[in-house]
Amino acid sequence: MKADIPMVRAAALARAGCLTIAALAASALPAFASGVIDNVNGMAVDPNGKIVHFRALLIDDDGKVEKLLPDRYQEPEYKPKKPKKGQPWPERPKGLSFRMDAGGKTLIPGLIDAHGHVMGLGLSLITLDLSDTKSLAEAQAKIRAYAQDGAGRKWIIGTGWNQEQWGLGRFPTAADLDAAVSDIPVWLERVDGHAGWANSAAIRAAGVTAATKAPVGGRIEMAAGKPAGVFVDKAMDLIAKVVPAPAPKDRDIAFEKAQRTLLATGITGIADMGTSIEDWQAFRRSADRGALRVRIMAYAAGIGNMTLIAGPEPTPWLYDDRLRLGGIKLVLDGALGSRGAWLKADYADAPGQRGLPMIPDTQLRNIMSRAAMDNFQIATHAIGDAANSEILDAIQELSETYKGDRRWRIEHAQIVSPSDLPRFAQFGIIASMQPVHEASDWRMATARLGEARLAGAYAWKAMLDNRVPLAFGSDVPVESPNPFVGIAVAMSREDGKGEPIGGWLPQQKISFEAALDGFTRQAAYAGFAEKRFGSLVPGQRADFLLIDRDIATARPADIRATQVLETWIGGKRVYVKGQ
Amino acid sequence: MKADIPMVRAAALARAGCLTIAALAASALPAFASGVIDNVNGMAVDPNGKIVHFRALLIDDDGKVEKLLPDRYQEPEYKPKKPKKGQPWPERPKGLSFRMDAGGKTLIPGLIDAHGHVMGLGLSLITLDLSDTKSLAEAQAKIRAYAQDGAGRKWIIGTGWNQEQWGLGRFPTAADLDAAVSDIPVWLERVDGHAGWANSAAIRAAGVTAATKAPVGGRIEMAAGKPAGVFVDKAMDLIAKVVPAPAPKDRDIAFEKAQRTLLATGITGIADMGTSIEDWQAFRRSADRGALRVRIMAYAAGIGNMTLIAGPEPTPWLYDDRLRLGGIKLVLDGALGSRGAWLKADYADAPGQRGLPMIPDTQLRNIMSRAAMDNFQIATHAIGDAANSEILDAIQELSETYKGDRRWRIEHAQIVSPSDLPRFAQFGIIASMQPVHEASDWRMATARLGEARLAGAYAWKAMLDNRVPLAFGSDVPVESPNPFVGIAVAMSREDGKGEPIGGWLPQQKISFEAALDGFTRQAAYAGFAEKRFGSLVPGQRADFLLIDRDIATARPADIRATQVLETWIGGKRVYVKGQ
Repeated sequence: MKADIPMVRAAALARAGCLTIAALAASALPAFASGVIDNVNGMAVDPNGKIVHFRALLIDDDGKVEKLLPDRYQEPEYKPKKPKKGQPWPERPKGLSFRMDAGGKTLIPGLIDAHGHVMGLGLSLITLDLSDTKSLAEAQAKIRAYAQDGAGRKWIIGTGWNQEQWGLGRFPTAADLDAAVSDIPVWLERVDGHAGWANSAAIRAAGVTAATKAPVGGRIEMAAGKPAGVFVDKAMDLIAKVVPAPAPKDRDIAFEKAQRTLLATGITGIADMGTSIEDWQAFRRSADRGALRVRIMAYAAGIGNMTLIAGPEPTPWLYDDRLRLGGIKLVLDGALGSRGAWLKADYADAPGQRGLPMIPDTQLRNIMSRAAMDNFQIATHAIGDAANSEILDAIQELSETYKGDRRWRIEHAQIVSPSDLPRFAQFGIIASMQPVHEASDWRMATARLGEARLAGAYAWKAMLDNRVPLAFGSDVPVESPNPFVGIAVAMSREDGKGEPIGGWLPQQKISFEAALDGFTRQAAYAGFAEKRFGSLVPGQRADFLLIDRDIATARPADIRATQVLETWIGGKRVYVKGQ
Repeated sequence: MKADIPMVRAAALARAGCLTIAALAASALPAFASGVIDNVNGMAVDPNGKIVHFRALLIDDDGKVEKLLPDRYQEPEYKPKKPKKGQPWPERPKGLSFRMDAGGKTLIPGLIDAHGHVMGLGLSLITLDLSDTKSLAEAQAKIRAYAQDGAGRKWIIGTGWNQEQWGLGRFPTAADLDAAVSDIPVWLERVDGHAGWANSAAIRAAGVTAATKAPVGGRIEMAAGKPAGVFVDKAMDLIAKVVPAPAPKDRDIAFEKAQRTLLATGITGIADMGTSIEDWQAFRRSADRGALRVRIMAYAAGIGNMTLIAGPEPTPWLYDDRLRLGGIKLVLDGALGSRGAWLKADYADAPGQRGLPMIPDTQLRNIMSRAAMDNFQIATHAIGDAANSEILDAIQELSETYKGDRRWRIEHAQIVSPSDLPRFAQFGIIASMQPVHEASDWRMATARLGEARLAGAYAWKAMLDNRVPLAFGSDVPVESPNPFVGIAVAMSREDGKGEPIGGWLPQQKISFEAALDGFTRQAAYAGFAEKRFGSLVPGQRADFLLIDRDIATARPADIRATQVLETWIGGKRVYVKGQ
């Protein structure tokens, strides 16, 4: 067919209100591309965050998007002119290396999780997982069964408990855990990673006694003058330091499980928030044997890991844009659930408690300077309104020295004073938020803060109205990584049961287009990756999903149930449902 | 010309006493190779360690040796048969991508240093280097001048001193160093890395007092009941732990300087003995930006580094066979110079002293088991005869459990009881020795041991007679990395001044062919690399040197002065003299 057809159809789409595909073309279309995914209900995200529809995706030899076609692919005909006498016919151009008819299925960009914990996910998949337990008794039974499965463990390690989900009304205790397992040490992290639950054997193994003081930024829950069993934030180290570290082989198994989980749920890229040297080495081991598929934007866990992993500056993009350490992750406060989040006023449900900063103000600025002077990006966990004000102050001060395209990130930005909202855009700060936290937290957050202090809570729409780049993630393994749940929650502010009906603080709902943008273009931008992948525009890596429904027209409850049929990264299929 | 010519000439060479080149051909010669280094006086080393002569080297598209030609290269003619009517002429085969006439120069395999310290070399190139000082006074003057050059250092760090070279007859003292610099701490490692010299400010900064005890495996030199200034072996940590670590940027600069030094002296591959995670990350940073040229066979500095760098097993060969961590380096005793080497009887010049093991016997076996069970190769520093017996015992015991191709390595193997010599071959142990140490040490070794205990000292010929794989290196930066000096010393056992005339223990001299084998094939074999590089046989990476003389016919004194004109790695030129 004629070469100008795509442009004609693009113009028709443009008239119909869509952006023209011509505007997205990185280069002229050669006669033959390397591959085509044909007959799709395709969506890409343009540089303004708007959805672009297409019917066929051309992929070049490098696995990059060559062109989005508004109509189905038509193979150019081979009609050479007759050669002069004695001359050979011109060679037939190389054909497509593959052509797939997707049968009209919906194709969207591979989704990016702007805030996750890759090895945390992986290790949770090979250790005891309590995230599905609905009561303390159920958790105890699961722990007991795990201890009795005969694996001969020296420690029992696990994650996922949540006393709120259990309706317990208090933290669990060492005695609660001793009732399940008392002969070997048990150490279980809370679902948010901001508290740990130890049995008496673990407390003994760590040498913690009634006389032990909590370190700055931490809290030991006490009962009858003794450690009660739960250790909050920096006090977790008191126990964690004696827990045997996973062996490299365990890390490799965990990482591969994490990758498979991510690919199956449609995540093709993820910002790893708090990468240790051990994590990094596991990523590289995988990559060195050709097994790294997910793209990882790594943020080092503190200065020591940053220096050891990357050295004097961020690493280059490695393994065809699959791995880079570009920044540092700092943790300024704790979480709302464990009342570790640093608030400007007392917790509504715990008078006298406001949480506290885990990094003193001068040290915070020193660490940030140390990273910024070597051009590392800085991503700071801030949940409470006091923590958000503090990091905004610090960024404002450092911005005078460290200019240019810094893309300061605030992770979570859950409770922000309304007066602080405009300050994000003022300093080019990215709000890195996790819609699914809202669905998990809304009851708890209302209890912790009270109705009067919710104006800047999980305030996605307010961020967009303030022209703040809004990158979305899941905080996996704190939450499920499923980005379709994230999109659904972003649109509805309802949880998995559809509660509260009509959504919590419904004025903060955002559109499907904005939600998709948060999980694609904006999440890539937040990791300095927007020229490489993220929104399926020509020139980017061909990372995309085939899914089982048209999420552009579906209601949130249906989007939530989306199944990923195929996941492609760099023009190669890396996951097929059911295989 | 006719395709069978190479074989005809090979047969002629075979009749002349050379191995046939046909025996080395990895595959049939295609009509055109990718590149040719023509008109050379070429030498490769065959799988039996014999020299193979050739006139042209064909390099394939992957930068590997395609073929060695016994005569100059002749481009095949293009004489296709006339095609049938209507058919095109066959395409002319792709020509060479390059062809270089070397003007008859001598071409040898890139040399491999089987035992060096890459970052040690690099850091020595960016810190104070005392290796050229001939007296304490000269060293003091150099230190004083270095302190006054205005660099604003907080510490002065350096290497290379040798009280034997100074003719001092004793270790230098803190007071000697205070006389040069007293206002900031100074810490200078001895040339062998087995002792350090601190000034009073450094001793104070480290909190070392008269009451400080030396750790096991270490010794604090004392004077008038106080630390005298020199700290031997494990006692070095007392000071070293407070010395600021080099910044990653410094490491990168140091590594690049090390690479240039190695390439200029003809080293294309090196076993890095004692790689830390910081070293490894510097190697990878270089490689990730395409700047790694030298091939590095890394041996981790202890279990912690081994696990952190490689994880559950040796790394794959990375970056086109330029980097691999395949093993672990252990240090069982100290050095002769500082009387840290562990002897079976007292030092002849220090009655009552025998040195001591730095790793107790059970711990040694535990560490070795830990590494061997994950298939890491084990390279153990053993200098004294007691240390060599101990590591031989340990290998003998472990060999019952850890079978297969283990290639246990003993590094230095300097003083070996004659009765222990046959035990090397019995367990397939590689003797990794440094000829140049003999030239530096012969007077000192005679003094330390006395004439009667020299039968197994630096006993290269005895190793070969016992059929022990003998890999050669330099121990750079303890010695100059220059492998031509190593070859010359191996043949002559004379030092740079030609002393002692006729060589020290001349029965241990070896042939040129054996010396070249030690720096090529055997050094590659010692690193499990013999299928990848090392001796310039077809199928291996094309790593080679053009040098300014025919070292196969030169006398040792002339070999010592060899200049490297060009260094090629993987078929690419990476160094040209004078550029």
